[in-house]
Amino acid sequence: MSESDELGGKGRFYLDDLAVGRRFTTATHVIDAEQIKAFAGQFDPQPFHLDDEKAKGTLFAGLAASGWHTAAITMRLMVETGLPLAGGILGAGGEIAWPQPTRPGDTLQVESEVLEITPSRSRPDRGVAVIRSLTRNQKNEVVQSLTSKLIVPRRPG
Amino acid sequence: MSESDELGGKGRFYLDDLAVGRRFTTATHVIDAEQIKAFAGQFDPQPFHLDDEKAKGTLFAGLAASGWHTAAITMRLMVETGLPLAGGILGAGGEIAWPQPTRPGDTLQVESEVLEITPSRSRPDRGVAVIRSLTRNQKNEVVQSLTSKLIVPRRPG
Repeated sequence: MSESDELGGKGRFYLDDLAVGRRFTTATHVIDAEQIKAFAGQFDPQPFHLDDEKAKGTLFAGLAASGWHTAAITMRLMVETGLPLAGGILGAGGEIAWPQPTRPGDTLQVESEVLEITPSRSRPDRGVAVIRSLTRNQKNEVVQSLTSKLIVPRRPG
Repeated sequence: MSESDELGGKGRFYLDDLAVGRRFTTATHVIDAEQIKAFAGQFDPQPFHLDDEKAKGTLFAGLAASGWHTAAITMRLMVETGLPLAGGILGAGGEIAWPQPTRPGDTLQVESEVLEITPSRSRPDRGVAVIRSLTRNQKNEVVQSLTSKLIVPRRPG
């Protein structure tokens, strides 16, 4: 972890630095069948995530990534290149939807937009930012929509 | 995968077999620091998920699992022992919250309850079940609440 990657380091956003409508875009990640099957083998062992042939006869009509895999890749992209918040990306929860399957060979990229900023009344050192993060594939289709409530520190002093 | 584990196999629930209020309970999973750091290294590389010492100075006040790791373990428990749906567990999305951190040494278990059952109007072969799945630790604290919309096939014929 380099110095600039430390939480609270230079270039990171405190709650006070965010504005509604501000957007952040990540780098891209290419997912392949091997990654899809490895994640599924560990966390979501179902035929449509594990086996190309068996996946054909399911609702997915072919191999597709676990939604939790798409969520995990989205998180990695946001942590590394997408959402440089002071204190890190710390979610209390949110709403998630997978309108399209993530497929082998897809190139994923995440765009986040600040929807709401609410300083805490009881805790003057922090607040909540509501952020919508859309994960798109190379055809610009949304494979995941995530609206998260994130805990973000206030700028000290 | 044994014959009884095949999607649509014996003992699996079609939409028609579900009833509002029906509950399903999984086996347990013990999470440790090694698992927490391995998942975080791959998908959520932040100090509070990676480093015991650095985690002390953060909002988590100690090492905690990525919320997406808790979600992934929850999924594995449901797929293997918790929610035997015909067609598998196939989510269109849902709401997720992490009211308490998942800690090293926690024993996790998931209880799911059927909240709503809605046959599709346009697709007579399927419907949507809304399922609330609470993941609890050994102190009976809820570490994750997930309300999912699942696509469930109708009983054929």
